[in-house]
Amino acid sequence: LNRIKASGLKLRFCTNETQATRENFVKKLQGLGFDISVDEVTAPAPAACRILKERGLRPHLLVHDDLIPEFAEIDKANPNCVVIGDAAENFTYANLNEAFRVLIGMEKPVLISLGRGRYYKETDGLKLDVGAYMKALEYACDVQAEVVGKPAKMFFESALVEMGVTPQEAIMIGDDIVNDVGGAQQCGMRAVQVRTGKYRPCDENHPYVKPDAYVDNLAEAVDIILQQL
Amino acid sequence: LNRIKASGLKLRFCTNETQATRENFVKKLQGLGFDISVDEVTAPAPAACRILKERGLRPHLLVHDDLIPEFAEIDKANPNCVVIGDAAENFTYANLNEAFRVLIGMEKPVLISLGRGRYYKETDGLKLDVGAYMKALEYACDVQAEVVGKPAKMFFESALVEMGVTPQEAIMIGDDIVNDVGGAQQCGMRAVQVRTGKYRPCDENHPYVKPDAYVDNLAEAVDIILQQL
Repeated sequence: LNRIKASGLKLRFCTNETQATRENFVKKLQGLGFDISVDEVTAPAPAACRILKERGLRPHLLVHDDLIPEFAEIDKANPNCVVIGDAAENFTYANLNEAFRVLIGMEKPVLISLGRGRYYKETDGLKLDVGAYMKALEYACDVQAEVVGKPAKMFFESALVEMGVTPQEAIMIGDDIVNDVGGAQQCGMRAVQVRTGKYRPCDENHPYVKPDAYVDNLAEAVDIILQQL
Repeated sequence: LNRIKASGLKLRFCTNETQATRENFVKKLQGLGFDISVDEVTAPAPAACRILKERGLRPHLLVHDDLIPEFAEIDKANPNCVVIGDAAENFTYANLNEAFRVLIGMEKPVLISLGRGRYYKETDGLKLDVGAYMKALEYACDVQAEVVGKPAKMFFESALVEMGVTPQEAIMIGDDIVNDVGGAQQCGMRAVQVRTGKYRPCDENHPYVKPDAYVDNLAEAVDIILQQL
């Protein structure tokens, strides 16, 4: 990371994190020794806020408590849409019914989902991710959610605009074959898959996503990028 | 109902009720003055039990507490499938994650759903029905649930077998255009929609289900049936 920054290349962190504000997400990474600041992060909640403002939407929030501060400046009175994130313990029967009632009460229900992940692993086991609850509300209200976050094309486009570069000038480095590599490529960017984290050997036979390159770790990706400057 | 029974015609009550055992369901109807007994009721839980026994399946149950006695005789050790019903207050974050973990841990996940309803109304408002939670688990595990209950063809076939009649000899009377009328017709039965309960005038323009007749109430349906004997 430090070598990329020293080279003068523009850099952006694209995360689907919706259990914490960018502030807390950045603090955590800083604690791990990363040189990162809030204004270098592209995340679903601020992307959703931009959409809400542009379209005059007032959300009913079904999100994690720790994410609520990201929506501080958004008008939430008389909601005319529902925003769903990985609400974790907030995915109660009562909260799901409430979000459903708000949605079904609209003439044309608008559901915005901060991701479409199926599940993820925590220390105490696998957990259903926001995508599963999104599907439940989609089915109940016969509506299609608008997904913010990777792999949505608009999410990568936001990151490019924030950096002020074209897709052809950018390269995505990520461990997730569909959300990172596939999403970036659909946006016209090149994408490298890192063989760490979420990477699985079977990703290399993925039916429709093929990375432009593989690297064994982030340092190797940086080597290759800097060599080609 | 009494006139049908007096005529000697065979009769069967087909319900998607999964928040109570047949015993309690029947008690409630008896309390309302209906002449009905447990062995006249076709319901999703006993239908699911038949499937479980036939296929040697041991369920992990995500159902309403009041439905659990229906599964008393079923082996539930080392589950190799998940059965989901309208669990209502049992649809907690923890219970949904647990059912998900059981499913995703199987080589070939088997999910049996006691219905596919989207939502229903209670005195305190609309509630998400089992179908929404079924969709969440289907998406998370990339599996298709096997639906027991109306409008599943197999459910109506069970009722016909229990009565010992062919589809051509039977007639379904119900208020739900898709679950009652559509389901029975797919099974080769004729079906009458009653303009009470769930009936909505827009049902009469339904895109793909057309009842064989409409009646204003159950008594009118009985009149017509008895006239044609």
